[in-house]
Order: sequence, then structure tokens, then C-alpha cells
Amino acid sequence: MKLYELSLSQGRTVSPFVWRTRFCLAHKGLNPERVPISYHDKDQLAFSGQDRVPVLVDGDEVISDSWKIACYLEDAYSFAPSLFEGAQGTALMINKWADHVQLGAMFLLCSPGTYDVTQDEDKPYFAQSRYEWTGKTIDDFRAMEDEALKRTRSALEPIRQTLAEQPFIAGDAPAFADYCVMGGFMWARTTYAGQVLEDGDPVEDWRQRMLDLFEGLGRNALSME
Amino acid sequence: MKLYELSLSQGRTVSPFVWRTRFCLAHKGLNPERVPISYHDKDQLAFSGQDRVPVLVDGDEVISDSWKIACYLEDAYSFAPSLFEGAQGTALMINKWADHVQLGAMFLLCSPGTYDVTQDEDKPYFAQSRYEWTGKTIDDFRAMEDEALKRTRSALEPIRQTLAEQPFIAGDAPAFADYCVMGGFMWARTTYAGQVLEDGDPVEDWRQRMLDLFEGLGRNALSME
Repeated sequence: MKLYELSLSQGRTVSPFVWRTRFCLAHKGLNPERVPISYHDKDQLAFSGQDRVPVLVDGDEVISDSWKIACYLEDAYSFAPSLFEGAQGTALMINKWADHVQLGAMFLLCSPGTYDVTQDEDKPYFAQSRYEWTGKTIDDFRAMEDEALKRTRSALEPIRQTLAEQPFIAGDAPAFADYCVMGGFMWARTTYAGQVLEDGDPVEDWRQRMLDLFEGLGRNALSME
Repeated sequence: MKLYELSLSQGRTVSPFVWRTRFCLAHKGLNPERVPISYHDKDQLAFSGQDRVPVLVDGDEVISDSWKIACYLEDAYSFAPSLFEGAQGTALMINKWADHVQLGAMFLLCSPGTYDVTQDEDKPYFAQSRYEWTGKTIDDFRAMEDEALKRTRSALEPIRQTLAEQPFIAGDAPAFADYCVMGGFMWARTTYAGQVLEDGDPVEDWRQRMLDLFEGLGRNALSME
């Protein structure tokens, strides 16, 4: 089994989607060989029929997209602990929320730091592609840090209210919904040097619990903290 | 079994929380006696130790709060179809999202119409309490209709993206997550005469399917449509 990942300077894993998949794999007790990919060698992913990470190769199966990988793992490794606890539909809604709302806010917060840890040869590509998507330069993003932080904290309100009542988003134990949201926090942890959450925020207590899972899978990663 | 509901002029049920409970009860195949309560006779709820609807009385059990009622029904009627499909934790996050984000936006949209269908004797209470919460008069709310509509449609984006991929929020069949979000749409249907969703929105197709459930439980209710 192989997992193709985006790997930036010093082998740093920043992609929230790769992080979702790494947590899902660990939940299923799987430990694939990791294949680092840079922005400039995405043609190594051509075999998958698209150019985005993560891509999981398991025997003859080639699966891209973190949601599809989670669904594949749930079916193919149904004997291992469940990612969805039988409620895959509801998990999709949280996945869509995380993509659109959480990562939409974190995109503002994490883009400057992602630029900083991108290999020098890829920095022009990174800055240009973000400018084409948003009309903003990396320095424009840097100037929006306070707004990005405010927007990120506000977007997390439903998660905050949930975690005020139970230890994990999925309930008493972590599952896909937690890994999905944690992917965004790993993006922040690996690219943003500031404090995303205020002291006393129940989301921060949860984040610390998540960092400890699977022998510190998240905590031991190269980070800005 | 008795369900205490807020009932406005002509017996209209507007509360999104009561609607959630009515759908959950129907999902479990239950059909309690409905007890109408007006804003001015909330002291009829004193036996429940609080003053908000819905309140469910089932034998010796008295349960208030639509989330707690859903959890109670899931446990006490575990032989009937499941509301959570085993993933109660994840459902709580959708409940929190609906309360904070969906109903936060719909509060702007639905308050003027709710005032209009409130019994004349309760109109001063209704207007005054909304003014105390928000600093806005009913006419202020009316003037914000375009903004409220825009905010509501935007807030629904994660639901929209989910329903582009599967027929119900819970997946192939409706469950708690659908009833939770539908509660807000029933509030709009019973108080707002305009069109909440744009033509072609997948959320509108879902809403139509939801209105048909349980022999038209939602569709047959007194509405503004």
C-alpha cells in the first residue's frame, strides 16, 4: 500500500486532505509506504487520472480524493474499527462543511505560511496560482491575518458547541468527522506560527487530544508550534 | 403520549424545534396527542421545569428540548427505525450547526412573518422580546429581507453540496440530520411568503421530498406557500 502525499521543504506534510487520510489510515491500523510529491512533480500522479494528493494505491486499486479514500477504506477494511459508525451520509455533510467553511477560513490564515515552507523552486508557482484564484498576493494574505483568525474562530462555532458536550466530534471516541476537521488544524499547525484558538476554547482541548492519537501522529509532525 | 407545541393563530405550528420533534416522532411511528400552547400560557409548561416547547410526556417521562427528545426516542423506541444510525455524536454536530448557522440566518428571515401569525394579544410580547434580544424592531427585520435571504442561501452551502451527491442529508434515506434541518424550513414555510431557495437548488428538490414524508406531514401543515 502506498500513499502519495504533497511534501514541502524538510519533508513537511501540510495538506489538510492528506492529513485526513493519514488519520483515517491510522484508525484502520494501516501504515502505507509514503511517497513524497512536490508541486513541480505532480506528473508522478498522472497514473491516477488527476493531479491532486492524496492518492492511495492498494494492490490494483488507485483512489484519489480524501473522501473517496475514506469510503474505500471503510468498505475494504470493514473488519477494522469503523470510520463512519454506519452513518456515512451524515459524515459527508461534515466533510462538505469542513471543505467549504473551515478550510475556506483557514485558506486565508495558512496560505502565507504554506508559501514560506514551499520549496524555493515552487514558490513562484504557488504565489501565482493563489493570485489567479483570489486576486490576492501572498503579502495581501499576510495583511489579512487578523481577519483570517477571526473568521476561522467564528467558523468553528458548531464544532465548539459540540465539543462542549462530548469529547470528540463523533461522540465518545474519534472517527471520520474528527479526522476531517483535524486535517484543517494540521494544515494550520504545520504552516501558521500563531495561536489559532483562544485559551479556554473547548476546541483547543480536543485538538490536544487529537494530537496525541496514534502515538502522536499529529504531534510528532514537523510543525510551526 | 403528549407533545406540547407552540400554536399560533389558526393553530399554526411554526417552531423549528417542534417540527424537528414531529418528524422524529413520525420516523419512530409515534403519533402523540398534541397540546397547543400560546406565548401567553407558557405557565402550562411549568411541570417540565422550564418554559420552552417542545415538551414530550411519555408515561412518567417528561423531556424538553428537541435534541434530548430525539435521544430519548432513540433509546426508548430502539425497536423502531433509528434516528441516528449509531452515530449520535456526529448528529449532534449537525444539530449545533442547524441551531447556530441555519436558524441564525432564518431568524432574520422568519421573524416578521412569525409576528404576523402570532395572536394579536401576544404581538406586543413577541415584538418586545425580539427587540430586547437584537435591538431591532419588526419593521427593521422587514427591511432586512434581502440580506436575510442572501445569508440563508449562503449558510446552506454545505447542505447544498451534500444533496448534490445523495438524496438525503443522512444518505439514501431520511433520518435525524434531515429532520433537524427541515425544522428550519418548516419555520420558513409557515411564516415566510417568499421563495427561500432559488430554482434549480438541490436543497429545494430535497425540501420537496421532505414535505412528502409521512403522508405529507409537512406539506399539509398550514403554510404561507
